[in-house]
Amino acid sequence: MDATRLTLGLDLGGTKIACGLVSERGEVMARHRVPTGAERGPEAVIDTLVDAAQAVCAAGGVGLAELHGVGVGAPGPVDVSGGRVVEPPNLPGWRDVPLRDQLAARLGRPVTLDNDANAAGLGEARFGAGRGASPLIYLTVSTGIGGAILIDDRLVHGAAGAAGELGHLVLLPGGPRCGCGGHGCLEALASGTAIAREAAARMAPRKEPWTAEDVAALAAQGDSEAGAILDEAMRYLGLGVAGLVNALNPARVVIGGGLTALGDRLFQPVRRAIDEHANPVAARSVTVVPAALGADVGIIGAAALALPG
Amino acid sequence: MDATRLTLGLDLGGTKIACGLVSERGEVMARHRVPTGAERGPEAVIDTLVDAAQAVCAAGGVGLAELHGVGVGAPGPVDVSGGRVVEPPNLPGWRDVPLRDQLAARLGRPVTLDNDANAAGLGEARFGAGRGASPLIYLTVSTGIGGAILIDDRLVHGAAGAAGELGHLVLLPGGPRCGCGGHGCLEALASGTAIAREAAARMAPRKEPWTAEDVAALAAQGDSEAGAILDEAMRYLGLGVAGLVNALNPARVVIGGGLTALGDRLFQPVRRAIDEHANPVAARSVTVVPAALGADVGIIGAAALALPG
Repeated sequence: MDATRLTLGLDLGGTKIACGLVSERGEVMARHRVPTGAERGPEAVIDTLVDAAQAVCAAGGVGLAELHGVGVGAPGPVDVSGGRVVEPPNLPGWRDVPLRDQLAARLGRPVTLDNDANAAGLGEARFGAGRGASPLIYLTVSTGIGGAILIDDRLVHGAAGAAGELGHLVLLPGGPRCGCGGHGCLEALASGTAIAREAAARMAPRKEPWTAEDVAALAAQGDSEAGAILDEAMRYLGLGVAGLVNALNPARVVIGGGLTALGDRLFQPVRRAIDEHANPVAARSVTVVPAALGADVGIIGAAALALPG
Repeated sequence: MDATRLTLGLDLGGTKIACGLVSERGEVMARHRVPTGAERGPEAVIDTLVDAAQAVCAAGGVGLAELHGVGVGAPGPVDVSGGRVVEPPNLPGWRDVPLRDQLAARLGRPVTLDNDANAAGLGEARFGAGRGASPLIYLTVSTGIGGAILIDDRLVHGAAGAAGELGHLVLLPGGPRCGCGGHGCLEALASGTAIAREAAARMAPRKEPWTAEDVAALAAQGDSEAGAILDEAMRYLGLGVAGLVNALNPARVVIGGGLTALGDRLFQPVRRAIDEHANPVAARSVTVVPAALGADVGIIGAAALALPG
């Protein structure tokens, strides 16, 4: 491998760290995965990130010093310009941790840091289902809902790096409480967590605890109560996307995350909501497609952060 | 006046045409206003636009040929790249009218066409309350609700020129019917039309017909029913803005239009909704301010479309 053309992508999650060597064309040439051990706090986790980086370089037969650069996707919120991780709920003890500069010092390579949803959105824009589309809206629908907005293949970061928080569009004032402290956010209505919460509330006696996968499995068997819960959640997802289509007139909406396993049960209501609620010009000009990078999106997206624009 | 530095701004509305000669610094050097006479159809209205352009040049003592250029703000939706006005509800008979090229041929100057809300947003960004702020969200709250999004002082047009339709963010699924055919859009909840509709529904015996101004006047006198109608509308306005703050992390939100006469009764609920519903990083980095260009915003904004970036 020509190591000067390889970029290291580090995907820091609350439960696992995934890293990989990624080519300029977005191919993953080597990968490595370890538990985050988040309960050990930031210093130990940063040690683990450095170890993982060294391990994947060893696996790929290249030295750290030969890499083009390092990109890191971390749980939001991230202070992009300052290179800091700002108190994410799933990384206990992290508060304004200067991860970018600490990793750059430890790895001896330039590091680019962004939040994981932005990284994934950039990965899909460069190498996945978002290629050639501008504006591009990326949504990841899983336990939570994250997102990214790209215009002309560049991430919209906003005034303080916090743009793309698409899970917290308010769709139902006074609705269910959200992890962010608000009520009726998209994430509180259409995420896996929201689906599990509704199942527990409406179908409690039948199972305990509920997961979104349980609800999806039941719905696939024709269970009408489970189906209704899913359909309601996906209707809200559609309304959120329709609002974004009205605001930004994207050429494409790419949806990734675990809930895309629902297939048409997710994509059809989103398309219908756009057709019903977005202005006709914007509705006509947008396609809604599943993400293409699969489980590697975290690594490829993180690496994309460090690739030349 | 140095006419080569003057730009003609034409603001085409459903009831009136306003035009003016605007300097590079956004000063209006001459202005002219005539009724649109929209019922006469597109050809007659275009004649009136040409007459108005000639009249304001005569008033300013300059020839059309000496102008830097011509900018036109028209009711949306506008096909920006094609230079066409696409069937606006308040211009009967207009359907894909190639207004840009027709005016350019008649006036002998290059013409730039955009929708009126984008023009106003650009005007505020260049010469008004939005100067130096990126991203910038502009909202005009009046009979209807329009908007514009600017990043790095450039309008976000989207894939087909339809971005910035901020009046049609869906905030209350199944809510009141909107002029766009949808339900529960921001415009159907927080515009002057929405306020008048609620007054007619809840306070019918007291007056007929109601206007938003009537409701505002009553509320200012301490009428609790009128106050509740306004406060509810402004709560929705705030939720819409908070969603946009989460999506785009703007540095500033500029609000113009007739309803800004409400003052704190409009701006305080918007600020409160941002503090309660937007993520803390985005909430901290945004200011919400009234538009600065007043009644000239249509002319200045239209001219700004034709000024060099």
